[in-house]
Amino acid sequence: MPIQAISWSPSGAVRIIDQRALPDAELTRDLESAESVADAIRQLQVRGAPLIGIAAAMGLVAATRHQRSASRADFVARAQDVAALLGASRPTAVNLRWALARMLRVAEETPGEGSDLWERLRAEATAIWEEDRAMCRRIGEHGLTLLADGANVLTHCNTGALATGGIGTALAPIYLAHEQGRKVHVYVDETRPLLQGSRLTMWELVHAGISCTLITDATAATLMRQAKIDVVLVGADRICANGDFANKIGTYGLAVLARHHGVPFYCAAPWSTVDVALADGDLIPIEQRSPAEVTMIAGRPIAPDQATALNPAFDVTPARYVTGFVTDRGIVQPPFSGES
Amino acid sequence: MPIQAISWSPSGAVRIIDQRALPDAELTRDLESAESVADAIRQLQVRGAPLIGIAAAMGLVAATRHQRSASRADFVARAQDVAALLGASRPTAVNLRWALARMLRVAEETPGEGSDLWERLRAEATAIWEEDRAMCRRIGEHGLTLLADGANVLTHCNTGALATGGIGTALAPIYLAHEQGRKVHVYVDETRPLLQGSRLTMWELVHAGISCTLITDATAATLMRQAKIDVVLVGADRICANGDFANKIGTYGLAVLARHHGVPFYCAAPWSTVDVALADGDLIPIEQRSPAEVTMIAGRPIAPDQATALNPAFDVTPARYVTGFVTDRGIVQPPFSGES
Repeated sequence: MPIQAISWSPSGAVRIIDQRALPDAELTRDLESAESVADAIRQLQVRGAPLIGIAAAMGLVAATRHQRSASRADFVARAQDVAALLGASRPTAVNLRWALARMLRVAEETPGEGSDLWERLRAEATAIWEEDRAMCRRIGEHGLTLLADGANVLTHCNTGALATGGIGTALAPIYLAHEQGRKVHVYVDETRPLLQGSRLTMWELVHAGISCTLITDATAATLMRQAKIDVVLVGADRICANGDFANKIGTYGLAVLARHHGVPFYCAAPWSTVDVALADGDLIPIEQRSPAEVTMIAGRPIAPDQATALNPAFDVTPARYVTGFVTDRGIVQPPFSGES
Repeated sequence: MPIQAISWSPSGAVRIIDQRALPDAELTRDLESAESVADAIRQLQVRGAPLIGIAAAMGLVAATRHQRSASRADFVARAQDVAALLGASRPTAVNLRWALARMLRVAEETPGEGSDLWERLRAEATAIWEEDRAMCRRIGEHGLTLLADGANVLTHCNTGALATGGIGTALAPIYLAHEQGRKVHVYVDETRPLLQGSRLTMWELVHAGISCTLITDATAATLMRQAKIDVVLVGADRICANGDFANKIGTYGLAVLARHHGVPFYCAAPWSTVDVALADGDLIPIEQRSPAEVTMIAGRPIAPDQATALNPAFDVTPARYVTGFVTDRGIVQPPFSGES
């Protein structure tokens, strides 16, 4: 059974699994305020583009729950402040801003006072979460066609139940194939520096009883050369109108290697990840994280004190390397346009 | 000043810096017996193809120093036993077997009893070490032509003073360029799982005052796409007659990425790394190391308990990806033949 990464606490706070603590400990946290939700997103207690969007929407609700007696104007102003705070917590993922913009639009379109707006926002956040669960399942169904019985899949970072409200994006087809009794084997890039593959994807897959092997990021090329990979499946944090997309650092290299070895390379993401306002990948803001994430691991230094490091959290893969985009609307090809 | 990775202890043991402890601690160990030298090689206290060869030759001397009063036949038999033990400590690097074969040949060709043979072996081991120092310098001189003032170099693993008896193989041109006042910047792959880039190369370069930036292995592709890499310089553990070569896992991926981005890709190694007995890379034995090196880091688990992992220590890069081989005999092209 896939894990449930997010829920409401009995008091109306945002309940999460602290993903920094995995796999050592399964630690649940109740995020009561906008600040604590933003911190959890910044610190990657909550991560994964779809889950970040859901957490932000639910965080907006949790952070305004004590303003229900406010006037309409005061409530909207407070909601806008909270949305601005949450929206600034990470720069690359588009789902974050998409979810918050949707929430603010709903607030503005709903008649009544603070309490009316808050009830509507709570329903909307729950809807965003439920839609994500359904979207994951549809991504899985569309992606199933890519996974023959016995398929060997390579994946990067974590794009599973811990990254979404449901069964994941790039892992969704794998969960469904397993559910249907197909044999699938997953090679999991450890995904330095924060080891989301090693810590999170391996944890999810082992718990679900899906056959999987951990590798260092630099081992993928050799597996492809040895014809041990049938398909590469990765997620996305933002997809541009032309199909260029941002995903965890290392994705671009995998795309080049897949192309070189004739291995199909698919990006799986909900349609909400498409940002039609961005023409191409050069316009995607890339989050630069602390060099300490590279010079330290699990709290221990692994480089000399004076070492400087680069730590871009994401890279951009040009659309020409992508065999197809597995979305809740089917397997599609760029250019993308229209409402997201 | 580059570090000195190996030397004789006052009692005639092999004195090494324990490279597992770097950069946390600079720990010197005196290896008294064949078993302790083999253990140090297996556990990567001593590593780097050229340094492994030197350590094995010096280990053969240290391990036979109490048999100097033996008869010629007994001494040779003991030397052969020690060489067999040391030769089995790692399967991929050719320098190990090359150095031991050279030592045994010298023993057989030297007239006299145990003490005569031992004195000759000690001189030969010292000669292997001195030749390595000289070879490093020649590799550096030949490689200097690849490093214009302001060059940005990408390297993988550790191929510097800690990997050799001298100033390294792939790092030798960088040391010489720095010595001559050229500005060179080195991007250093951290090189999971054992982090020789992060722990060792960064330590060497920082100590030598050479400008360097640490990156995760999966960041290299994006730097190439951004045209931030002028040349890739890596070492080799074994080079086949046709130019295919084995090096630390991740090298093959870098070679494909360099080719894709039009970045020159050079392999730097002493001529003794060429194994003309092997026609091509498919014949190179690849050491499979413990999965625990992937599932743990610095003694801490980073994957769930039940996680299985693949841990090939090396990969094979076909000759067609290599712009040139920087050796002590110049920058050369395969096929290679003749005496090594």
